[in-house]
Amino acid sequence: MPPRFGQSLAAVAIGAWLTTGATGQATLPSWNDTGPRRAIVSFVERVVKNGGPDFVPPAERIAVFDNDGTLWCEQPMYVQLAFALDRVKTLSPQHPEWKTTEPFASILEGDLKSALADEKGVLQMIAVTHTGMTTDKFTKIASDWIGSARHPKTNRLYTEMVYQPMLELLTYLRANEFKTFVVSGGGVDFMRPWTEKTYGIPPEQVLGSVVKTTFEMRDGKPVLLRQPGVDVVDDKQGKPINIYKVIGRRPIFAFGNSDGDQQMLEWTAAGSGGRFMGIVHHTDAAREYEYDRKSSVGRLDAALDEATAKGWTVVSMKDDWNTVFPK
Amino acid sequence: MPPRFGQSLAAVAIGAWLTTGATGQATLPSWNDTGPRRAIVSFVERVVKNGGPDFVPPAERIAVFDNDGTLWCEQPMYVQLAFALDRVKTLSPQHPEWKTTEPFASILEGDLKSALADEKGVLQMIAVTHTGMTTDKFTKIASDWIGSARHPKTNRLYTEMVYQPMLELLTYLRANEFKTFVVSGGGVDFMRPWTEKTYGIPPEQVLGSVVKTTFEMRDGKPVLLRQPGVDVVDDKQGKPINIYKVIGRRPIFAFGNSDGDQQMLEWTAAGSGGRFMGIVHHTDAAREYEYDRKSSVGRLDAALDEATAKGWTVVSMKDDWNTVFPK
Repeated sequence: MPPRFGQSLAAVAIGAWLTTGATGQATLPSWNDTGPRRAIVSFVERVVKNGGPDFVPPAERIAVFDNDGTLWCEQPMYVQLAFALDRVKTLSPQHPEWKTTEPFASILEGDLKSALADEKGVLQMIAVTHTGMTTDKFTKIASDWIGSARHPKTNRLYTEMVYQPMLELLTYLRANEFKTFVVSGGGVDFMRPWTEKTYGIPPEQVLGSVVKTTFEMRDGKPVLLRQPGVDVVDDKQGKPINIYKVIGRRPIFAFGNSDGDQQMLEWTAAGSGGRFMGIVHHTDAAREYEYDRKSSVGRLDAALDEATAKGWTVVSMKDDWNTVFPK
Repeated sequence: MPPRFGQSLAAVAIGAWLTTGATGQATLPSWNDTGPRRAIVSFVERVVKNGGPDFVPPAERIAVFDNDGTLWCEQPMYVQLAFALDRVKTLSPQHPEWKTTEPFASILEGDLKSALADEKGVLQMIAVTHTGMTTDKFTKIASDWIGSARHPKTNRLYTEMVYQPMLELLTYLRANEFKTFVVSGGGVDFMRPWTEKTYGIPPEQVLGSVVKTTFEMRDGKPVLLRQPGVDVVDDKQGKPINIYKVIGRRPIFAFGNSDGDQQMLEWTAAGSGGRFMGIVHHTDAAREYEYDRKSSVGRLDAALDEATAKGWTVVSMKDDWNTVFPK
């Protein structure tokens, strides 16, 4: 055969070897063979190479992922907001006064814009839907809802609106002895009922915002009560702070999609040794949504500039993923 | 051979089989064959028995341990207090004003009673020794100190003042696919530098009290700063609350030694299915210390009554442990 053809064959063989794991399964099959996929694989291969200059012991392979817009779809509104609105509707028969009280009247009339215009109103809606009950009760409510609620555009369960390439990435990292965590601005209790089944991430590796919680004895049994008011805001500066408080190690791998993730990415980047910082850029109006600098949900502006300036990996959903949602 | 002798041999063989694991190593060798050891082994064997009525899937085998007085010695004073006092002495050359300011003057004169008499003074001492620095800096200070500071009575390193039977218990639980956590009233950052090496418990499985923390850019690099004031008090009611916030699952196994652990034990006990609640009772003046209801350090009073009333396992250090400290 002509030499060039032989070289091509060898290149294909090497390519196939590079992209399959020990099991012979393809690595990250929903990722196109473009920059982001190569950057991820190159990073992982460097940190797991025992004796290599970038080797990181398994115990220190901490990978953190934002949730909304990074692991699952956050449009047309945050899933937890859809949950809160549904809860208002479900609870409204017990609250006839809501027909004439804001923000409830607007919510019940389907006028979301008016309902969410006032921050005080939003906090009130969060309070009535998320607090004033035991933690066990809230977990049950959230579990039941997520088990049946569906995305308004695709009619899929929300837990089917997760990104297939990111599921593969989580699996790939764990196969390489990374410990994967969710670090989300969303409520930790809203996520924990389903993250293990959906992402393979157990409750104790899910960080999020937390409402004030108190301990009380009721009929001789201890209960934890969800109180109005937020105790932990796991967003922006709050992300590295919460990572420090809860995990106690600096991640070596971080993925986000918005300005709310910027400080987590900066904190990850500032450690010594090999680091990976990734951003999901929503560029795919046909298969998902297209938004960044001007979006009220998941705004990506300052973090996109920093990513460009510092050479972080920016994933274009349109160009770098051949599949968006699980089939 | 006479029948009775044969029966005895069989009994010995069965006993040996019951008390050795798959590796042939003896299980919990520093525990006498008394009630507590039997209760632990019986509990673990029940929850790991696949198909049995008390089976618990590995992911739900969460075990929590208090630290001071449960995993290591807390007498004659909490180790972290010894650290704070040492830090005052180390820092005093830079603070000539301390010679005439309380509580520092009393600390420097060795008059601990006066120094600790006033709560405001104690908080001031904590503030100057534990805050006003980056998290990285504090970790370095705590690591350096714990690497060389010694117990005043035994002259051992503090990390050698851990309880050998509890180390064996941690290992035994992990061998049975339990996930072990520290849940301590002590500062989380004071423990994390050494828990992995000493207990086999990684930083992300250590819960403790946390000082207020802020995020800041310094010379273009992000730092986390330790601020005066406490953000999380991981003691009494704070323990189940923090377990809920950080771990997000109810433990099935909990060990403490003082009234500060009572709510954690109650919270553990209140779940469904098999539960184990244990208390280390300091009854051994000869080998360690003897204290309970009237001690200012690690007071065990209401929790001891509740343990008795509810049949929790109370370990008498004197009677139930054949070894206290590692050899």
